[in-house]
Parts: sequence; C-alpha cells; structure tokens
Amino acid sequence: MVKESKQSGGLEWRINVPNETAAKVLVSESKSQIRVCNGLRGLIVGFMSRIWKFLQKAWSLAVREPKKAIHGVKVGVALSIVSLFYYMRPLYDGVGGNAMWAVMTVVVVFEYTVGATLCKCVNRAIGTFLAGALGLGVHWIANQSGEKFKPIIIEVSVFLLAAAATFSRFIPTIKARFDYGAMIFILTFSLVSVSGYRVDELFELAHDRLSTIAIGTSLCILTTMIFCPVWAGNELHYLITNNMEKIADSLNGCVVEYFGINENVNSKDEASDKVSQGYKCVLNSKATEEAMANFARWEPAHGRFNFRHPWNEYLKVGALLRKCAYCIETLNVSTNSDTEAPVILKKHFSKYCIGLSSSSSDVLKEMAVIMNTMTKSTKIDLMVNEMNDAVQELQGVLKSLSKQPIIRDSKNGTGGGNKSSTTMVRVMEIVPIVSISTLLIEIAARIEKGVEAINELANKAEFEEGTKKSKQSENQQNSS
Amino acid sequence: MVKESKQSGGLEWRINVPNETAAKVLVSESKSQIRVCNGLRGLIVGFMSRIWKFLQKAWSLAVREPKKAIHGVKVGVALSIVSLFYYMRPLYDGVGGNAMWAVMTVVVVFEYTVGATLCKCVNRAIGTFLAGALGLGVHWIANQSGEKFKPIIIEVSVFLLAAAATFSRFIPTIKARFDYGAMIFILTFSLVSVSGYRVDELFELAHDRLSTIAIGTSLCILTTMIFCPVWAGNELHYLITNNMEKIADSLNGCVVEYFGINENVNSKDEASDKVSQGYKCVLNSKATEEAMANFARWEPAHGRFNFRHPWNEYLKVGALLRKCAYCIETLNVSTNSDTEAPVILKKHFSKYCIGLSSSSSDVLKEMAVIMNTMTKSTKIDLMVNEMNDAVQELQGVLKSLSKQPIIRDSKNGTGGGNKSSTTMVRVMEIVPIVSISTLLIEIAARIEKGVEAINELANKAEFEEGTKKSKQSENQQNSS
Repeated sequence: MVKESKQSGGLEWRINVPNETAAKVLVSESKSQIRVCNGLRGLIVGFMSRIWKFLQKAWSLAVREPKKAIHGVKVGVALSIVSLFYYMRPLYDGVGGNAMWAVMTVVVVFEYTVGATLCKCVNRAIGTFLAGALGLGVHWIANQSGEKFKPIIIEVSVFLLAAAATFSRFIPTIKARFDYGAMIFILTFSLVSVSGYRVDELFELAHDRLSTIAIGTSLCILTTMIFCPVWAGNELHYLITNNMEKIADSLNGCVVEYFGINENVNSKDEASDKVSQGYKCVLNSKATEEAMANFARWEPAHGRFNFRHPWNEYLKVGALLRKCAYCIETLNVSTNSDTEAPVILKKHFSKYCIGLSSSSSDVLKEMAVIMNTMTKSTKIDLMVNEMNDAVQELQGVLKSLSKQPIIRDSKNGTGGGNKSSTTMVRVMEIVPIVSISTLLIEIAARIEKGVEAINELANKAEFEEGTKKSKQSENQQNSS
Repeated sequence: MVKESKQSGGLEWRINVPNETAAKVLVSESKSQIRVCNGLRGLIVGFMSRIWKFLQKAWSLAVREPKKAIHGVKVGVALSIVSLFYYMRPLYDGVGGNAMWAVMTVVVVFEYTVGATLCKCVNRAIGTFLAGALGLGVHWIANQSGEKFKPIIIEVSVFLLAAAATFSRFIPTIKARFDYGAMIFILTFSLVSVSGYRVDELFELAHDRLSTIAIGTSLCILTTMIFCPVWAGNELHYLITNNMEKIADSLNGCVVEYFGINENVNSKDEASDKVSQGYKCVLNSKATEEAMANFARWEPAHGRFNFRHPWNEYLKVGALLRKCAYCIETLNVSTNSDTEAPVILKKHFSKYCIGLSSSSSDVLKEMAVIMNTMTKSTKIDLMVNEMNDAVQELQGVLKSLSKQPIIRDSKNGTGGGNKSSTTMVRVMEIVPIVSISTLLIEIAARIEKGVEAINELANKAEFEEGTKKSKQSENQQNSS
C-alpha cells in the first residue's frame, strides 16, 4: 500500500489509503472466516464432548456392572480363537472356506447369560439339522420330478415352509423357546433348497455347515461356561431376592416417613429416594423375570441349582411381589395426600402402623434370607404370626375409633370410655389414616401369600431344613 | 385244537385241551402284545392330539389376528422372490455366488412391523458399511507391516473391536436403536478382516456383499410396505387408545359391581371378567409400548402420522394410564374385601361414587375418541370439570359424614342435624367405602394428568381443531 512514484523528478511517497468498501470486504471476509472457524470448532467441541459423555457413561456402566464388561472380553476371546481357524492350515483345510460359518455362529449365538447362549445353540443346531434334512428331501423329490417341475416344487416348498415357520413364531409356546430355531430353520431350508439348484455337492455342504456350527457352538458354550459364567438362574434368584429387600425398604421407609419419625431433612430425602427407587423397579420386572426363567430352564446344574430347579415358582413369587408393589404405589399416594391427619390421631396410629409395617418388612427380609441361604426358616411362621397379630391390633384400633374418643397426650388428660363425642375426630381427617391402615393390612395379606409361595418353592427346590443347622450345632456343643 | 384221528377204525373226535402253562404263556404274550400295542397307540394318539391342539391354537391365533398370518405369507413371498435370483442366469452372474447373502438378509431382517424392518435394514446397512471400511483399513495396515505382524495386528484388532462393540450393546442409547447394527458390525468386521488373510479380491467381496444386502433390504422394505403394511406407530396408537377404553370399562365395571346395580348373576360374571381382563393388560404394557415407540421413530410418514410424530408423548400417556391401572388394582381389592359396608351407607354413597366413576370413565372414553379421530375435543374440558365437580361432591359427602348422621330410609325417619351419635355408623364399617372413595378421587386426579398429557400430544402432533368441524357444519347449515 505504500507506493514509490517518481512524479516531478523528486522522490515522493504516496500512501494509498485502502478505500472503505475493500476494507469492509476484508473485515467481513475475516469475520466470516472466524465464524466458520468458530462454527467448526464448536461442532468439533460439541462432537468431542458428546463422545466424552458417551465414554463416561460407558465407563460408569462398566464400573457398576463389571460382568457386562467381562462379557465383552469373552466375546472378543471367542472370536479371536475362532478366527485362528483361518490361520492354521490343517484346520482350514479340514472345514474349508466354510470356516466363515463358525465365525458367524460365534457372533450370533454368544449371549450374556449361559442359558440364553445354550438356548440359541440348541435352537441353531436343531433348526439347521431339521431344515438341512428337509431341504435335502425336497431337493431329491424335485430332482425326481424332472427339470420342468423342479424349480416350481422348490419355490412352492420354500414359500409354504417359510410362511408356516414365520407364523409359528407368533404362537406363545414356540415364541418362548424356539423363536430363534424357527428363524434358523427358514434360513437353512431356503439356503439348502435354493443353492441346491447350482451346487452339486449338497451333502458335503451340509456336512461342512454342521461341523462348522458344531465348532462355533461348542466354543461359545465353553467360553461362556468357563470364564466368569453369568447364569440366568442365578440372576433370576438374586433379582427376586433383591426385589424382596427393595419392597421391604420401600414399605418401611414410606410408613416411617409419613409418621415423621425421621425429622432430619437430609435423611428424609434419602429415605424418600430409596422409597421411590425401590418399589418402582419391581413394578415393571415381569418381562425380565419371564425371560430369565425361560433361559434358566436350559441351564445345567450349577452352584446351588439343579437342572430341574422349579423356576416357575420364582415367577409366582415375583408376581406376588409385584402385587405388593402396586399396593405400595397407592400407599405412596395416600402418604403424600394433601389432607393432613390431626397430630393426635397420627401419634395414636403411628405405633400400630409402624408396628405392622416393620413386622411386614421383617417377614419380607426373612423371605430374602431364605432365598439367600436357600434354607427353610424356622422363624418365618413365628414372624407371620407376629405380622398377623399386628394386623389384628391395627384392626382393633380402627374398630375402637368409633367406640371411644382418641387418647390425647397425657398432659391434656385421659380419654374417657363413653360414646360422647366431644373429642370425636371428623371423618375427613381420618380418611388418610384409614386408607393407609387398610393398605397396610392388604399388603400384609399379600405378603402372607408370598410366604406360601416361598414355602412351595422351598419344598419343590428341596431347600435345606433350617432346623438341621441349629440341631447340628446343638449336637456339636453337646459333644464338645 | 380239534383233531381228526382214525384210531380203532371208527371216526373219533378228540379235543386237545391246551395245558394251563402254555395257555398262560399265550395269554401273557398276547397281553403284553396288546399292552405294547395299546402303549404305542396311546403314544401316537397322544402325539396326534398334541399336534391337533397345537394346530387348533395356531388356527385360533390366525383367526384372531389375521395380520400375523399375513406376515407369514409376506415372508414367504419375499423369500420366493429372492430365491429367483438363483434361477435367473443374468442376475446370478451379476451378484455371483453371494446371492446367499440376499436370502440371509431377507430371513434375518424381515420383521412384523415396518418400523422394525426399517430399523434392522438401516442398522444392517450402516453396520456392514462401517465394518467393511474399517476391516479394509485394518487389512491394509496389516499388509504394510509385514508377514510377521500381520496376523497379530488382525487378531488384536478383532479382539478389541469385538469386545468394545459387544460392551456398547449394553449402553441404553445404543441398545435402544443400534443393537442389531453393533452385532452386524462385529460380524462383518471379523469376516472381512479374517477372510482377507486368504481371499485376495477383498474389494470385490465387499462390493458383492453390499450389493446383495442392498437387494435383500430393498426387497424387504418393498414387501413390508406394499402388502398390508403393519406400522409400529399405528399399533402403538391403537394400543394406547385401547388401553384407555379398557381402563374406562374396568373402572366403571368395578364400581358398578360393588354397589350392586347389576343384580343379574350372569351379567355380573361377564362384568367382572371384563374388569379383571381389562386393566391387567395395561399393568405390564410398558415394554411393548417402549419397543413400539422405538420402531415407530424409524417409520416414514404414513396414514395420519408424520415422520416426526411425537411418539415420546405416547409413552407419557401410557405411563399415566398404567398409574390409573395400579389404582384400579387396589380398588379391586377394596371392593372385594370381607368387611361389608352397611346397606344404608352403600346406598347413600352409591350415587356419588358411581357418578364419579362414570364421569371419570367418560373422560377416558373422550380421550380415546380424541386419539381415534385425531381431533382436539371441545368437550373434554367440560367433562373434566364435571369430573372435578363429582370429586368435590364425593369429598363433600365424606366431610358431611362426620357432621350429620347418615340418612336412613324414609320409613325409619329423617336424619337430624346434631352431632349426637345415635345413628352414627361405626368407623370399621365406613372403611371400605372411604378407601373406595379416596381411590376414586385419586384416579380422577391421575386421569386429569392424563388429559394434560393428551393435550400436549394433540398440540405437538398438530391434531385438527375440534371446533372446525362444528363451525364448518354451522356454516354449511347457514349457507344452505
């Protein structure tokens, strides 16, 4: 912008001041560049922060449930092993180019729990075998009937079998156990019958596929059962046990909070958190429980569970727990209702309600102990009796409400025995307390049914007798 | 056993009576044969009857839900079409022996609803593409690093990516949308990177696979969208609408049955059946609703639903309906409780309780109408107001319980206005009525929240204005 000109002989400096429009263009150009840069940076930063958040989430999940991270490692190990088939010449020559099927089997069949993996393995094996045999049969028939009818027969058979097998997947009994098998059946049948039109060595193909699938499935089963196995049965057992504890905590927390024993705000928040978290998990646990029970049926004896462990009984117990959870959901509403019961009444009832809720949650916790130790409890009947006593006491208090005025604080004087209604409480004020009491009584009834279900389970699963241990320890004490 | 002998010239008949042991052997042999026959027959008959029952079940399912049978036919059609690729020479030469992948894609990807099929198609395409590209990249790096390191690099990369992708399937956001894609990613990556060790024409392989998958997926999408499409969005819409009607019927049936308006035994049974069937479906509908909402997001605009229809709002409405169902579950308990309320009290309350329950179920039915017609209702606010009036009336009756004695039959005389407790009902007898009333009030509150959720949904989904029609019809009337 500084120009040297030789006008009029002398040396003269002329400074070209850039005109405004050019300046504006420059400025706006640099501005738009900066904006683009900023936009890009923003995009990149946003993208990175999203990835970072995702990684944080993944990390926290891995820390919370390391089993799931281990499952990832297990799949990696199984795939690495199966891919070795490609590298080792002798093995490769054995199964030929079909080693691909082994890789595919591992990827598709390897599930989180042992039961699910076994279920898929068995389904895959049976489905492949049946469909392979049927495909060969149809192929043979088609070959016998001449070149003209061959494609028609094959097409029609593919259509009919695919339609029938697909529809069968909607039927509950098939859906629960053989859903995957039906899919594999369709897949294999159409591959075998259709590819037969081209490939002549069908038997060899079938043999290769079966052997590669056998390699894949056995590898999956070994990996899933040897390294940190996750048994569906075990998971179901602990899910139900956990649900019992959660409901016990929710029930107690809810009632204690309402009658205001914990005056501390912090502990109240914690308690209400526990309450809302606890039983809400149970409300929607049906699908998970059913899936796990389904998978658990495929599992061999493991740990403390036999092959024919009565998994169905777990579903019954689970259903009863859910019924308790529905009641607690309504209880939670009553305790948070606007109409506040008078303080005297609350104090009068608190003893009985808290007594009932704590004895109910004791029963639930004892049920959890039965499940955890897998021994029949000697105390449970006693505890149920205690709970029933608490129920009758509460019912008695409800009955007495109409017969005598509420007992006031000892300072104010003692309550009389007459029907005279000077200290009578208005019905609207009783409503929340009455509904809480009836709900508690109903929950106790449901828990009792739960105890029956647990006893049934304990009998069918042949839990140890709870008395044995104490007797043994007595004997040991006597002998020593 | 009748022998003709010619002894002593004359004709003599001798009858050989078979000895006892032989007879016994014969009898026992024939007995065991009969037993085996019977056993076999029993087995065959049992087997046949089981198959017969299974077929009956399948038939009744097909009659009840013909859509599911049609889905089977659709899969059959799609598979028959894709298997034609094997027969038509030019097409076969185009995609080579990889036509198998097209068959496999159809079998694996074809789902019941359009949304689920689209979700799987997109997942399969993205997963295959990403994994193919990454596999080629790893392959190239491995090739650059010499024969010695090549297998190590490939094995390590397979292990790491398989483990990471498997673990990512547990993260909720991935699980909800890209679960299948992650599996396909692992599958394709391991196949590409591992098979690359042998096959030189990797690019060709990748190209073939992508083109066959494109053929399979496009065929699936066409078939699922053209012949009797089952839209996940539609299903979700009608599921929620149906749930509203079910809850309305359950609520009304439950209250009416308790207050004993239907004295007829048969109709009572029917009603109670309806009650128990209706709301119980809603209790466990969460998983289905979430899955459908997930699939509905993948669907293009169809029928009355746009691409970005607010499916999330349906989940909110569904959750509120479930909360109503929890209350009805408790209500059902209260109405079946042993302590019977006195007849006078029942009569006194029946008007208000039935009034509230019928106005509540009217609101629910109006909500269902809003959903069905997809037009905003002009009546709903009025109906909510009516419901709230009914709530206040019932609350008023509850309050008045304490102030004045219950009105007896006109024969016995009129109730006075004093607090004197001659006609006072005992509290224990009020309990069931009081809890039913509070539950009805709570249900009304939850229904009101449901109406808010519906209005939110109607705004976001831009439902038609309900007034338009009536205005239009008015205009038409005026002009004519």
